[in-house]
Amino acid sequence: MNTKIVLKTLGKVMRIAALLMLAPIICSLVFREYRVALNFVWTAIIFFVPGQALAMLNAGDGEIYSREGFAIAGLSWIVLSIIGAFPYIFSGVCGFIDALFTNVSGLTTTGAAVLTQPELLPRGILFWSCFSHWLGGMGVLVLIMAIIPLAGKNSMHLMRAEAPGPQVEKLVPKMRRTSLILYGIYLSLTVILFLLLACGGMSIYDSMLHAFSTAGTGGFSTLSSSVGGFGSLYSEIVICVFMFLFGVNFNLYFFILLGKVRAAFKSEEFKVYIGIIVISIIAITVNIAGLYGGFVKALRYSSFQIGAIISTTGFSTADFGAWPMFSKAVIVLLMISGGCAGSTAGGLKLSRIMILVKSIGRELKRVVHPRSVSVIRIDGKRVSEETVSGTNIYFTIYAALFLVSMLLISFNGRDIATTFTSVLTCLNNVGPYLDFSSSAGTFAEFSAFSKIIFCLDMLIGRLEIIPMIVLFSPALWKIRA
Amino acid sequence: MNTKIVLKTLGKVMRIAALLMLAPIICSLVFREYRVALNFVWTAIIFFVPGQALAMLNAGDGEIYSREGFAIAGLSWIVLSIIGAFPYIFSGVCGFIDALFTNVSGLTTTGAAVLTQPELLPRGILFWSCFSHWLGGMGVLVLIMAIIPLAGKNSMHLMRAEAPGPQVEKLVPKMRRTSLILYGIYLSLTVILFLLLACGGMSIYDSMLHAFSTAGTGGFSTLSSSVGGFGSLYSEIVICVFMFLFGVNFNLYFFILLGKVRAAFKSEEFKVYIGIIVISIIAITVNIAGLYGGFVKALRYSSFQIGAIISTTGFSTADFGAWPMFSKAVIVLLMISGGCAGSTAGGLKLSRIMILVKSIGRELKRVVHPRSVSVIRIDGKRVSEETVSGTNIYFTIYAALFLVSMLLISFNGRDIATTFTSVLTCLNNVGPYLDFSSSAGTFAEFSAFSKIIFCLDMLIGRLEIIPMIVLFSPALWKIRA
Repeated sequence: MNTKIVLKTLGKVMRIAALLMLAPIICSLVFREYRVALNFVWTAIIFFVPGQALAMLNAGDGEIYSREGFAIAGLSWIVLSIIGAFPYIFSGVCGFIDALFTNVSGLTTTGAAVLTQPELLPRGILFWSCFSHWLGGMGVLVLIMAIIPLAGKNSMHLMRAEAPGPQVEKLVPKMRRTSLILYGIYLSLTVILFLLLACGGMSIYDSMLHAFSTAGTGGFSTLSSSVGGFGSLYSEIVICVFMFLFGVNFNLYFFILLGKVRAAFKSEEFKVYIGIIVISIIAITVNIAGLYGGFVKALRYSSFQIGAIISTTGFSTADFGAWPMFSKAVIVLLMISGGCAGSTAGGLKLSRIMILVKSIGRELKRVVHPRSVSVIRIDGKRVSEETVSGTNIYFTIYAALFLVSMLLISFNGRDIATTFTSVLTCLNNVGPYLDFSSSAGTFAEFSAFSKIIFCLDMLIGRLEIIPMIVLFSPALWKIRA
Repeated sequence: MNTKIVLKTLGKVMRIAALLMLAPIICSLVFREYRVALNFVWTAIIFFVPGQALAMLNAGDGEIYSREGFAIAGLSWIVLSIIGAFPYIFSGVCGFIDALFTNVSGLTTTGAAVLTQPELLPRGILFWSCFSHWLGGMGVLVLIMAIIPLAGKNSMHLMRAEAPGPQVEKLVPKMRRTSLILYGIYLSLTVILFLLLACGGMSIYDSMLHAFSTAGTGGFSTLSSSVGGFGSLYSEIVICVFMFLFGVNFNLYFFILLGKVRAAFKSEEFKVYIGIIVISIIAITVNIAGLYGGFVKALRYSSFQIGAIISTTGFSTADFGAWPMFSKAVIVLLMISGGCAGSTAGGLKLSRIMILVKSIGRELKRVVHPRSVSVIRIDGKRVSEETVSGTNIYFTIYAALFLVSMLLISFNGRDIATTFTSVLTCLNNVGPYLDFSSSAGTFAEFSAFSKIIFCLDMLIGRLEIIPMIVLFSPALWKIRA
């Protein structure tokens, strides 16, 4: 592998990260939290100095191939996870492990919380936690690609390592323009959401942070009672609609911008997404109607919760831990499925599930007609056999990671439901786990060892496994291109 | 498909099933339960009359290909499940759903119980429940093949549809001899176990029934407190050792019989089996030592329970529901893994897991070396790419069935742990589920709808998915060979 180009690109990522600290610095200054602002300045320096040194490396005319792409993605996210945790420590909010957990939970858009009372946090710190959702949602490398020209022509591989889903499509031939378009759509939707919330009576600060959280499908809120705490039906509806919107493949918005509205809505994955949402809302509404004394209230809570879970945002307006088991089972399934590929949602992604279901169908057909040869199509296009078998193996690795994590978390001695769903919520970047007593179980009570495992699960989930695992493979570092 | 040969073979299976009723009839007569004996006679007649009619069909010189094999296996097991439930109903022990559940639990060697007080059952009925474990363990079709010559040369496909594991090996060129050898080994081991138990002070009846249960890796016992109820260390050790033995691929015993002892113990799967057992015993012993005030007692309980779970027998000597979460997590993992392919154990089978793990390793290697081509080997032999991708898809279907079943069982309104582990225990043919209060949760409290889903899961688990699913595919019945 070309180690130099990996380190050089990592350096560029760190320089941009230093620059991004400007946002929480400005926020802290606005709220006159000068000490907190200084903490972000220090963090920026810690990002910048080694970043500048690495960026000055002479990498020749090295190319970024698949393995370099994975290594850059894996390393960048680990460095961002660690250094991005410093503001929490510097501000005395918590110790290293909790800071790391919070920052990873932020960047990976999980939204799992150990700091359970956001009301007590400095404004700048809370801003950073929600802003990290926004950065992690579309991806830091995609941002880098949009801002600066990268060495090497194959930056496609960089995008593939960070972008969610089984296949990555370029919207336009140039990767840089693709990244720009994606971030343009992302920023525009975020701004619209912010304006809608601000116009509805939420403060500028609350609106901005919830816009960040929703856009990145993260889940951190400014209230410990989450979105439900505002008690505003208008805000709930706005956030609910946008959670659904951010769970959609961004290609669809690009098509709409190009005026190809019909083509956009023909997407098979989009239809499946809508289908699952409608069926789940009906099923849960009927299931919980008795709890809330009627269908209207039940519909309000169920649709919000399904938006929060399928988009893997993790906000809540109701205590779904008290819902009947059937509703909980639906929530568990939606946690696993997640939203569409190419969205900011986590989980397996619906297009992967569609490939899996179609490959199951084909396998059963083969049993009946042993000599039949058939290809799997999505949107009329043939899915390559490599992608089909890759997706099956992806799922196997996913399940294996789930089981191994469950075993490791079991050392913590929590009950089966907690152990099972806490791992699930981290691996799929959702946020809340299912406890018997409360919907949004807190991660504060877990051991330091468990928290580190959860951090790995969140990173593995966000980067879709391969980049994180490959990083720990000695073979990667031995070979030279 | 050649429907006639499917029905004709089904008829032969039913005739043999009628003949097999002799065993519980004799048992009932010995204990002077004449009414019960009569119930078995009626059941035999219900098996025989339509069986004889079907067996007399003229199927020409039809061959049994893969799809016919699956159809025969699926249909035979469904017919045996339904008619085999009649003795329970006739004897007034329980209603249809509970009878069906008990019989399916018996035949599939699951051992999940709705009749929680075996002490109250007629002797003949209890005999039938344990005898059905023994029949289902090695397989009814394998028995048929050993007894009567079947039409068609390709009876290999019949064996493949019922035998556990990703690949089926013929021990000798002729399938009939292979079946005979397998049943010979199976019967001999059962007899040895019976003699060892009987010599240790257990009654002839108890020894016989526990030998059946252990050999089939079922789990029904003559005591509601299971094997622990005898309070005999000797019996516990004997049963524990034999549970491990019945979880081993029977090919290994064949090699030993041929004098190829070295070759037998070189099997990779066998080494993995032993490795997992040793590590699990050590881990759980250390984990529960505090509960039992020392390592000796902890070792006694942990090794028995691991034998009972990895072989998917499901006996118990301790209340493992009270064990720490780590031990429970290990038990859950062992439930999923199960024993070796070609044994009477359930679960995914270790050789499948080995193929999955090796295919994960290869996929990660491919990321680093994109152009590398490598084959997966087990015991030095190349595993075909068809088997590798088939195993990955098998796992995907398995997981999908698990999740769908969990959703359906969630209607029952039990907690997450119960819903999760009750499905797991049925799909893997283990028996007990993990509750918070007791180790051997009973299935009596589930709804009729849940019990039917569990029955399907048990059958799907025993027949390794494909035959049961294909049976419901309309395409299978349309085509003509």
